[in-house]
Amino acid sequence: MGHTSTPHTSVDQHAALVRSLLARAMATGTERVPLADALGRVTATAVTSPVDLPLFRNSQMDGFAVRAADLRDGDTILPILGEIPAQRGTPEPLIPSTTVRIMTGAVVPEGADAVVPVEDATIEGNLVTIHRGRRAGEFVREQGSDVRAGAELLPAALRLAPRHLAVLASAGIRDVEVRFRVRVVVITTGAELVDPGQPVDDGQIYDSNGVALEAALRACGAEIVASIRNSNDDADQLHDAMFAAAAGADIIITSGGISMGDHEVVRDVLTPLGGRIGHIAMQPGGPQATGSFEGVPVISFPGNPVSTQISFEVFVAPLLRRVAGLPAATRAPRTLVADLTSIPGKRQFLRGRSVEGGRVELVAGPGSHLVAGLAASDVLIDIPETTTELKAGDTVETIEL
Amino acid sequence: MGHTSTPHTSVDQHAALVRSLLARAMATGTERVPLADALGRVTATAVTSPVDLPLFRNSQMDGFAVRAADLRDGDTILPILGEIPAQRGTPEPLIPSTTVRIMTGAVVPEGADAVVPVEDATIEGNLVTIHRGRRAGEFVREQGSDVRAGAELLPAALRLAPRHLAVLASAGIRDVEVRFRVRVVVITTGAELVDPGQPVDDGQIYDSNGVALEAALRACGAEIVASIRNSNDDADQLHDAMFAAAAGADIIITSGGISMGDHEVVRDVLTPLGGRIGHIAMQPGGPQATGSFEGVPVISFPGNPVSTQISFEVFVAPLLRRVAGLPAATRAPRTLVADLTSIPGKRQFLRGRSVEGGRVELVAGPGSHLVAGLAASDVLIDIPETTTELKAGDTVETIEL
Repeated sequence: MGHTSTPHTSVDQHAALVRSLLARAMATGTERVPLADALGRVTATAVTSPVDLPLFRNSQMDGFAVRAADLRDGDTILPILGEIPAQRGTPEPLIPSTTVRIMTGAVVPEGADAVVPVEDATIEGNLVTIHRGRRAGEFVREQGSDVRAGAELLPAALRLAPRHLAVLASAGIRDVEVRFRVRVVVITTGAELVDPGQPVDDGQIYDSNGVALEAALRACGAEIVASIRNSNDDADQLHDAMFAAAAGADIIITSGGISMGDHEVVRDVLTPLGGRIGHIAMQPGGPQATGSFEGVPVISFPGNPVSTQISFEVFVAPLLRRVAGLPAATRAPRTLVADLTSIPGKRQFLRGRSVEGGRVELVAGPGSHLVAGLAASDVLIDIPETTTELKAGDTVETIEL
Repeated sequence: MGHTSTPHTSVDQHAALVRSLLARAMATGTERVPLADALGRVTATAVTSPVDLPLFRNSQMDGFAVRAADLRDGDTILPILGEIPAQRGTPEPLIPSTTVRIMTGAVVPEGADAVVPVEDATIEGNLVTIHRGRRAGEFVREQGSDVRAGAELLPAALRLAPRHLAVLASAGIRDVEVRFRVRVVVITTGAELVDPGQPVDDGQIYDSNGVALEAALRACGAEIVASIRNSNDDADQLHDAMFAAAAGADIIITSGGISMGDHEVVRDVLTPLGGRIGHIAMQPGGPQATGSFEGVPVISFPGNPVSTQISFEVFVAPLLRRVAGLPAATRAPRTLVADLTSIPGKRQFLRGRSVEGGRVELVAGPGSHLVAGLAASDVLIDIPETTTELKAGDTVETIEL
């Protein structure tokens, strides 16, 4: 209970704490959704096929259904006794030494065991000449040759792409059991905050953290169930708003209100509940807090806009991406275009722009207010705590944004 | 006018035809959307900042606002005359040889030119001892140091990520001019088609092409404005449905109904209007058609489910991804796990699964009905027309799905 200062926590240690706090919150329930709504959702269980695919033996070509044993090595002339379209119905069995026209996808009649493509046959009135022998099975798609009834169509924990929805539809499946999206409450705090579009006075700034966190959460497959702005430094009011929102949430994410001032609303709500406020050896994003509110884990970032965005990317986004079946952010080594210095004892996440030849250049400085610099970046440059100086041509680790 | 057979068209030639047909259709109009709805949309124009960022000179730290000239090399004791919170209001000018407490983000008062972090100062009652001199400008964020009013915040044709929305919000911008999504009508045809969830009789199959095309289009940033199923082989009815849907569409995409049978509805609608039906030297997906209906370009794929999905991926997806600011599908060389053969004169797109060590193995066969095989794949293996045999260990080009 109370305010715990842990000045030497590393990024990796804090990331492990956040991962542990969120593990249960991200193991969400499941729901059935129609295929049309299932793109990008994650399968809750493996899906097995209720049917054979193909559903029935059918023709791979427009052509003639034949019995292979009726065909000679040279020309064979057969009477054409009818046509089987690709539509509902069971065709009559094939009479030996005759043929029927057949369309791609149509049922191959009993007694036939091969299809001769129309371009390999010569038609004259009601007779067709087949110019060579055929193997039994040629151009015939056997029932169940793609998948057998009862076999697995899709594994569990798969992010559904169009081709996955297609195979479910092919098997006649109309809806699919998927994990719930992780439900998140986003809270931004700060007496200086004004909504975009409103006039600002001296001392006020536009709130970008709400927009940034909500968009970043959606991009990670989460759902925003409530957005709360606290701009009057009133911890009781924040408490009440959190209480109202927590029931429907898996995670609460906050920005601001966790530093050393007199009116730090997130701190004031969390610390009586056992929340931990600490300093992480990183820049931007040094102050970080974690806690629990009505059983819902709370992850709290500092309010500087760049700190908030990078904290989310470093601590929360990797977890949400994994649970949503999204690929992890690409990490790649790149070579520096210019020298740089870094603060000893802090892991820095500098903003960079990748340039040709696998190189990277710095965008703006390390300041946690440089939102335009972050917007102009396409990678973060991840500088270890112990590094203080790097030279042009040195290799650094980058994280794609 | 009429049915043109072009048996020797290459994949690249047909792709160029589709690109040319769709070029104008994809140059859509623009609309203003609120930031909350703008994630993943594409900027219609460059966006410039209406304001300086930061909006005003403010403190980078919780600490003390000072005049650097007042500080000695050793200790300087200053009286604390007040506190400036991060909130609305213009603080009084700093009286020389005094200080005020200041919070991160708060207005730096006139007369002050540096901030001393609280952790570098010793406080006793209303006095603070600063232990060394400071450079003017230290821990002060200058107005406009991130971006100047009038400067470009974001370029045109940028797919909006969370960090881009954040900088717009920071500049007080509430909505942004983006390109319309490309509006597409999806048409599936075939007398054999049944909706998933319904019973099937012999000869009938479940329609997967509608689900697959709609999901693939959405994944490419397009909007589905109408879904039409024609399963009665009635070209007049299809014509009427297309007429009703075309007015609100940029592109019409169809599957099925373009081969050699008696009732090929897409062919029957398009050829009187000058549509081209041709054979492309590829597998799957040989038959392909293009046309125009009420001024709306029509791209027509064959009805086999794998043919439809791969045709979309090869001919249409790259164009839509580019216009939506999405990255192109990754192409990479991989080595074959086993030998394979390919049909001479046809470019094959085989289904593959990437395995460790940059290798790829075939999934199922080349049949265009193997929807489970496609679902289990993660790459297409792109085999040139002229290649007929490859050995285990040979390098092939793969396209990530």
